[in-house]
Amino acid sequence: MQREDHGLGFIMQYENVAWYDKGKVRILDRRIYPIRTEFVECTHHSQVAQAIADMVTQSGGPYTAASMGMVLACYESEGMAEKERREYLEKAAWTLSHARPTTSAKMMTYTGSIQNAAFKAMDEGKNVMEAAQEQAIIDLNKRYSKSVPIGKIVADHVPDGGSILTQFWAELDIAMVLRALKEQNKDVKVFCSETRPYFQGARLTASCAVDMGFDVTVISDNMPAYTMKTKGIDLFTSAADVTTVDGHIVNKVGTFQIAMACKYYGVPYIAAGNPNPAHPGIDSVVIEERDPELTLHAMDIKLTKDGVKGYYPAFDVTPPEFVTGIATDKGLFKPADLYKYFE
Amino acid sequence: MQREDHGLGFIMQYENVAWYDKGKVRILDRRIYPIRTEFVECTHHSQVAQAIADMVTQSGGPYTAASMGMVLACYESEGMAEKERREYLEKAAWTLSHARPTTSAKMMTYTGSIQNAAFKAMDEGKNVMEAAQEQAIIDLNKRYSKSVPIGKIVADHVPDGGSILTQFWAELDIAMVLRALKEQNKDVKVFCSETRPYFQGARLTASCAVDMGFDVTVISDNMPAYTMKTKGIDLFTSAADVTTVDGHIVNKVGTFQIAMACKYYGVPYIAAGNPNPAHPGIDSVVIEERDPELTLHAMDIKLTKDGVKGYYPAFDVTPPEFVTGIATDKGLFKPADLYKYFE
Repeated sequence: MQREDHGLGFIMQYENVAWYDKGKVRILDRRIYPIRTEFVECTHHSQVAQAIADMVTQSGGPYTAASMGMVLACYESEGMAEKERREYLEKAAWTLSHARPTTSAKMMTYTGSIQNAAFKAMDEGKNVMEAAQEQAIIDLNKRYSKSVPIGKIVADHVPDGGSILTQFWAELDIAMVLRALKEQNKDVKVFCSETRPYFQGARLTASCAVDMGFDVTVISDNMPAYTMKTKGIDLFTSAADVTTVDGHIVNKVGTFQIAMACKYYGVPYIAAGNPNPAHPGIDSVVIEERDPELTLHAMDIKLTKDGVKGYYPAFDVTPPEFVTGIATDKGLFKPADLYKYFE
Repeated sequence: MQREDHGLGFIMQYENVAWYDKGKVRILDRRIYPIRTEFVECTHHSQVAQAIADMVTQSGGPYTAASMGMVLACYESEGMAEKERREYLEKAAWTLSHARPTTSAKMMTYTGSIQNAAFKAMDEGKNVMEAAQEQAIIDLNKRYSKSVPIGKIVADHVPDGGSILTQFWAELDIAMVLRALKEQNKDVKVFCSETRPYFQGARLTASCAVDMGFDVTVISDNMPAYTMKTKGIDLFTSAADVTTVDGHIVNKVGTFQIAMACKYYGVPYIAAGNPNPAHPGIDSVVIEERDPELTLHAMDIKLTKDGVKGYYPAFDVTPPEFVTGIATDKGLFKPADLYKYFE
């Protein structure tokens, strides 16, 4: 079983997102990349969960990290009695998928997949570690493969010579969009909103786009509307941490503000992300609030006087009426038609 | 002639905004306050203009700095022949008022006022330095006095127990709003958008509010819409670098995005700032673009890979239909009625 990277392997953020090797999971620290290239090494799956909670890896990174964390849990549980080992892996799957609340339903599909593969190996008396590692690579390849048509759909909506605006989006789908734009021989400018408080747009999305040879401009989170007015943005596109079946997009906080500006300026907004059947509507989605102190800091420098409080909602919700289309592995859907994805 | 501070003297940012003394203008460096308290000392009015261009002082600070810069120009020109001195002061008034493009019309009223006082003193054979210093204090006091009713108008629209949201607003008017809220015995929470790339909201507005004893929360620029949804904001209020006679608000970039969210969530937006007759409409306003590299940095830390570009429009424009009211020293106007200010 080979890991397929669809030609994106040269991008540091993907190549090194998270990998299991010899009893360790090594995760690229996206909190500081590309200012510094550092890794967090985890020798226990609970450390992987903590790394996800601490945002060592973000965007799609946690899906890979959680899969690798499950492989690590299989390693940890070698030598246990079978019943004990099954319970151990079930708990690990829960711990890893619930490291952050908003995406836990989707995370469960990844941790659950490795758990099932391990259980199946036990049923059949096969090597559990081998089965878990193979399944992790299968799932990773599947995620990459599913992303290819999504990238093409978004790219199809960008005119040659045009400009796209992104909100934080450091993982696979944006790279697939950019790869598809290259394949279509389109000369496209990329504008990235910087995405406070972690600056993932400036650090990660922009790094990906510049690594792929694009003309990239970073703006701060208060500039998307003005940039639409002055720079002629042709498409706003983002990932979705959750896509509800009724067409709500849960994504990095600030997405809804940009979507409102899109509506005002007539810029289409295409979000990328398959709907999640665990979330028929928005009410079942928990919006994570993170440590408010983080909002009071910029790259570890405290900005405010003592006594000033912070607030840090990690995501916001864009209602369906602000979304032009949702790109999925089964094609482009209008939000109102998204339920047909499951037909 | 005494400087009046309407009880705001204890606030570092006002007390030390910019002051002329013995051949020097000393300006509080608002680019780094309150992380560090540092001053820039100018021994020539061109250095004052450069300090304004470099955003050593911001918001209303440049008006005081430009007045003090004119006093310094009077000092520099002592001993010149009268004709030569008049030309020197005219040039200084132009240099100081045009340090930044967007606000130069309003800046001219301050530098022109000192120039006129100096010319009058020459006509009447009086001491030019004394006349200039006195006029600078008169103009400063007038600006403070004009701000008192504006603060009261905004405060009148905030319910007791309510919450207000501000976009960068470190100067006089926000302090007058907060002072009026205190006088009205209202318990009000203040939410400040941090205002990238300089973080003036986090550093300056929040410092002012916490110094005055308010419950202050800083959010990043991607969070205002979500904060309106979750925190029950009762009023969004901002200053205006330019208020056009037809009711456009030119203010720190990001204001329009917040105003759009206000419209969606039904939050009123009251801007504070007298209309400027030099700008009957928006077409005469030049939106300043600053060094794009600044957007790629946070507190002097470079965030992006080499090759990534920046973009830094300093202001944006909120059209009249997104403005609930404009608070002026002659009362509250609807944008469509603002021309009546001059009747």
